[in-house]
Amino acid sequence: MKVDGIPFRTIWLGRDGHSVEVIDQTRFPHRFEILRLETVGDAASAIRDMVVRGAPLIGATAAYGVALAMHDDASEDALDRALDELAATRPTAINLRWALDRMAALLRPLDPAAREAAAYAEAAAICDEDVEINAAIGRHGLAIIEKIAAGKPAGKPVRILTHCNAGWLATVDWGTATAPIYMAHDAGIPVHVWVDETRPRNQGASLTAWELGHHGVPHTVVVDNVGGHLMQHGLVDMVIVGTDRTTARGDVCNKIGTYLKALAADDNGVPFYVALPSPTIDFRVHDGVAEIPIEERGGAEVSEISGLGPDGEVTTVTITPPGSPVANYAFDVTPARLVTGLVTERGIVAANEAAIAAAFPERAGGR
Amino acid sequence: MKVDGIPFRTIWLGRDGHSVEVIDQTRFPHRFEILRLETVGDAASAIRDMVVRGAPLIGATAAYGVALAMHDDASEDALDRALDELAATRPTAINLRWALDRMAALLRPLDPAAREAAAYAEAAAICDEDVEINAAIGRHGLAIIEKIAAGKPAGKPVRILTHCNAGWLATVDWGTATAPIYMAHDAGIPVHVWVDETRPRNQGASLTAWELGHHGVPHTVVVDNVGGHLMQHGLVDMVIVGTDRTTARGDVCNKIGTYLKALAADDNGVPFYVALPSPTIDFRVHDGVAEIPIEERGGAEVSEISGLGPDGEVTTVTITPPGSPVANYAFDVTPARLVTGLVTERGIVAANEAAIAAAFPERAGGR
Repeated sequence: MKVDGIPFRTIWLGRDGHSVEVIDQTRFPHRFEILRLETVGDAASAIRDMVVRGAPLIGATAAYGVALAMHDDASEDALDRALDELAATRPTAINLRWALDRMAALLRPLDPAAREAAAYAEAAAICDEDVEINAAIGRHGLAIIEKIAAGKPAGKPVRILTHCNAGWLATVDWGTATAPIYMAHDAGIPVHVWVDETRPRNQGASLTAWELGHHGVPHTVVVDNVGGHLMQHGLVDMVIVGTDRTTARGDVCNKIGTYLKALAADDNGVPFYVALPSPTIDFRVHDGVAEIPIEERGGAEVSEISGLGPDGEVTTVTITPPGSPVANYAFDVTPARLVTGLVTERGIVAANEAAIAAAFPERAGGR
Repeated sequence: MKVDGIPFRTIWLGRDGHSVEVIDQTRFPHRFEILRLETVGDAASAIRDMVVRGAPLIGATAAYGVALAMHDDASEDALDRALDELAATRPTAINLRWALDRMAALLRPLDPAAREAAAYAEAAAICDEDVEINAAIGRHGLAIIEKIAAGKPAGKPVRILTHCNAGWLATVDWGTATAPIYMAHDAGIPVHVWVDETRPRNQGASLTAWELGHHGVPHTVVVDNVGGHLMQHGLVDMVIVGTDRTTARGDVCNKIGTYLKALAADDNGVPFYVALPSPTIDFRVHDGVAEIPIEERGGAEVSEISGLGPDGEVTTVTITPPGSPVANYAFDVTPARLVTGLVTERGIVAANEAAIAAAFPERAGGR
């Protein structure tokens, strides 16, 4: 998407043809800086230090990390070391594992002399495939927005609420939940986005607001408590969020607080959509609330918060009393009954077992 | 309630018999300081600068402000000036108006020589009445907690979720939503309180957590997004919140985000109680969503946050991108259908027009 008029992806090949450049996401929304990765070690650090985040972008960075290693040394040993180093950066990231397996399967059989070129081509293909999946999600979601816009007086914006950041910064481009929004905006359909702050890590206020603002999409940041009030007063036409994991029957595990917005949407007749690339569907899991363990993260994310201090430096302040315990559940599960539709690369799929299996028959049999 | 074992109210007469002391609430939860009010100007500043907050405490401080004025000069002129000065501090505070009217009605007919003693006595009476109302709310709410405790294995805590601060710091003592919790704790019933952070002003994380912690009540601070997840997993036995305004049919206007918790409670079969002194019932209003205008406050409460910086000083940091608009709705309305019961000084009242009118017949006729 664009940053102040200039098209960007979150990761791209440098002009020298071998270094890789990424947007440094650690200092959002206060700084916009490009970081150049020259070695596999640079790529590993970028993943480990969350310079890049979001499953698709982590996978793409790992793929380019292998390419950087092959540029330096295309031996079997170097390949093994690169795969190990990158795999260790975020051991639970499924996309990271998937990208590394794909690179290994391609490169191992090749003559070392052929590996560098093949690795760069495959990393580029992984990026392009991610962009194409998100663009397909965007096209299907765009149809929903177009339909809502058609039912409103001309010029009145379609008001969309989103939670957390399922934006282009988490992918190579377009994002998932944001892809339909960007496509509608670029097509000249007036949209306005209510951006949930998304405590505790504030991905909405710091990432979603930043990317919408710099692409030029009208938006307003609200605290997570506000969405119900907005929906009660007819100020939201649709909700669209991303998902970390979707079950075979359409339960959606997404950032903590998503479930509360789904309840409010249901209570007020507001459609609630979930945008997802189909690989996030886990056909082994059915009842999300009962079966998906919810990660508990460190308490400092709740008791401390970072922002731009009066001196212009990023500063961390403590906001809870000393001695008060905190708990930090990272995700919750929205039951399928509250989901209007799943916006996938193959179209809008109803959130039930039969519809999901029919849309992805090649995977649904694998329970 | 107690602060580290020492009993406190939020306002009390100084040892010299005429100055008034209050807890300075502007620097919570990072500092606990007592402020002495010597003049009506001190009392006005304390209200204006939010050294004291919460409707009942504002009323009590205004009453003592009149007493401080009479200590200095009990003339008709001085009384008028004191009433004007105090009324101007927070023009929309209903309790402030009510307390000043009550003081004026008492003092005007009196001989100036009798006014000082009468003013101090009346201010003390206003405080004691607030304490008694909250204690009555506490006793009725305690019965609910006792019943839940009786259904659990011995020693297992009753887990209570609350939003914002309807605590003793907002009243003279006990609080409203917290009164049953303190009574249960003091009676030896094990309780555990989930404290919603309550963005944007963080009254939960900064006030409720502070007062529970210093009284010794087990609690855990969570971000506002977490409550739905907790209820889905059976980790909440009841919700209890306060209210700024309750309609004749039992709709509840309370801090923004209350409605989302009520939806989650309803979806998971968790009882949702609202504690209130009956003066907060507004019998002229029926449909809260349609009829109650919701205050929009300044955006800085959303885009900036204060906490204790690395240097030990209270510091404000900016947490949204420059140029991203914010909206700041202060309250929302929870429809009566989501309210299990209203915990009033006269007992538990069902949230419907007939039950409320039957409980408060002397006021319900006045539509």
